[in-house]
Amino acid sequence: MTSSNETVSREIQLAARPQGAPKDSDFTLVERQLGQPGEGEVLVRNLFLTVDPYMRGRMNDVKSYTPPFALNETMTGGAVGEVITSNADGLKAGDLVLHDAGWRTHALIPAKTARKVDLLPSISPSAYLGILGMPGLTAYAGLLEVAAFKEGDVVFVSGAAGAVGSVVGQIARLKGAGRVIGSAGSADKVAHLTEKLGFDTAFNYKDGPVSTLLKEAAPDGIDVYFDNVGGDHLEAALFAFNPFGRAALCGAISQYNATEPASAPRNLALAIGKQLTLKGFIVSSYSHLSAQFAKEVGGWIASGELHYDETVVEGIENMPGAFMGLLDGKNTGKMVVKL
Amino acid sequence: MTSSNETVSREIQLAARPQGAPKDSDFTLVERQLGQPGEGEVLVRNLFLTVDPYMRGRMNDVKSYTPPFALNETMTGGAVGEVITSNADGLKAGDLVLHDAGWRTHALIPAKTARKVDLLPSISPSAYLGILGMPGLTAYAGLLEVAAFKEGDVVFVSGAAGAVGSVVGQIARLKGAGRVIGSAGSADKVAHLTEKLGFDTAFNYKDGPVSTLLKEAAPDGIDVYFDNVGGDHLEAALFAFNPFGRAALCGAISQYNATEPASAPRNLALAIGKQLTLKGFIVSSYSHLSAQFAKEVGGWIASGELHYDETVVEGIENMPGAFMGLLDGKNTGKMVVKL
Repeated sequence: MTSSNETVSREIQLAARPQGAPKDSDFTLVERQLGQPGEGEVLVRNLFLTVDPYMRGRMNDVKSYTPPFALNETMTGGAVGEVITSNADGLKAGDLVLHDAGWRTHALIPAKTARKVDLLPSISPSAYLGILGMPGLTAYAGLLEVAAFKEGDVVFVSGAAGAVGSVVGQIARLKGAGRVIGSAGSADKVAHLTEKLGFDTAFNYKDGPVSTLLKEAAPDGIDVYFDNVGGDHLEAALFAFNPFGRAALCGAISQYNATEPASAPRNLALAIGKQLTLKGFIVSSYSHLSAQFAKEVGGWIASGELHYDETVVEGIENMPGAFMGLLDGKNTGKMVVKL
Repeated sequence: MTSSNETVSREIQLAARPQGAPKDSDFTLVERQLGQPGEGEVLVRNLFLTVDPYMRGRMNDVKSYTPPFALNETMTGGAVGEVITSNADGLKAGDLVLHDAGWRTHALIPAKTARKVDLLPSISPSAYLGILGMPGLTAYAGLLEVAAFKEGDVVFVSGAAGAVGSVVGQIARLKGAGRVIGSAGSADKVAHLTEKLGFDTAFNYKDGPVSTLLKEAAPDGIDVYFDNVGGDHLEAALFAFNPFGRAALCGAISQYNATEPASAPRNLALAIGKQLTLKGFIVSSYSHLSAQFAKEVGGWIASGELHYDETVVEGIENMPGAFMGLLDGKNTGKMVVKL
């Protein structure tokens, strides 16, 4: 049935819903024949695919802000690719596009679901999956709007070496934070935070109780906590908060693979007397900041004031491993899959 | 040493810091001789004293928004009394005053720490310790400003038969809530909420897991949660919240006597996807609402639209028991001690 008009896409499907940490057998690599684009469609060869922590939630069969992935269907997620064939106005072969048909090498999609991106000089297309994309906007909106950061605030960010956390800490520094504190899961990452990203101090959360480590790092307390981790980290932040502290609740990676309810934080009642605000958010509610974000963050990248890292895994067949590694903290900065 | 110029005040002191639930031996009743008021002072005979849940925190030796009570000193707290002798401009014998030298029958205090109150017709002076005082303003500010209540919201309030909760539910009803749901600790209280205070529905939290009871009471979810209880109640609210739900964290009475950290809520990560806001507060930060509160709530009381209850215990010697009973849910509405 294969003809010269058909393209073979290699795709990752969810074979089983992970129980706890995902494992190889939860994923399958399949091949699919894609035809030519119909009216209004484009055929895209993907260049970079993203793996993000939130995808772990979509692997469970529970209602959330995004529907769960279906079993035995190709998963979705951010991707940057090049248009090979276009049957739509506004896009032509060779255009670089950002779209949501990830977890696959090729995508046949309605043109209206793809956004053309104009590559900035010396920037990899993968940046649109990270610093200039969803994780970057998450950091920007979460710190500045959700946590209502103001100059002089002492800021603590967990998952600080990750795609979001590393940007949060740097934006806080660029915006005049009193002090920027990060936590990460290895000595190398901790060194990277202070030596390369300009964090004032950082600690490896595996070195002791997080609340003890945070108290040492922030003896005068914290004003803002950007939470990517949940659990013990959030508990430590509640202990460390100054009055009127604000937490942006962005992620809870410590719990994504959990099979039991989280036992922490156990000190949420501290929020009363300290008059804290804890605010959960998802980035899609902050698209009104997109233009301001692109301008400000783009400027910091161009000037070299904002640094970003990528951990690049090559090959679609290694994408499940990249995702599992992400949940295990194997990345520094944005984890992407290069095809 | 006693002369006709001296007044005997009977006072409750903290004899020991309670471990877990307070017990009789944690308190002592003492007598003190009070002299005549010095320049700028007044001598007050107290008529009503307040016991409030927050006082439990002050019995612990921990830093909080109010300093801890000192051992072997008379405790403090809201009181309404009548000026017996005045040595200060602006106050004269017979004036009714609200002040903070409670837990005692008589008080010799600086006049500037007392506020003269003009009694509304047919209202007991004790109302200034409840519906027209701190608990009333707590309910008003917490619902309308902290939880940003808006017409149509489904509102859940815990400790709903208490001094604060009963007012929260009624204000929500008067302001056009879509539905008002309360929890309390006895069948009698539950009946009181729906039959007398106009709650749409209510449940006895001792009848089952709170999350199950709340789901039955609010099958379409809740928008606002006013938390007086913490723990399982907060966990249930997190499960029940609709997107963009808001919690005013006012109290955590379930934990005040706890000797172990709270194990709930264990589902705080739900705040991320649901984009919830949890905001702790103490009423002293909302004094800018006092005038508006007095006018609006005073109006509802005058018109009979807002009902308030008091549980009155008589005699200073019974004040520790009143306080212990309060923590145990023995009150409906405001618990006060009448002298």
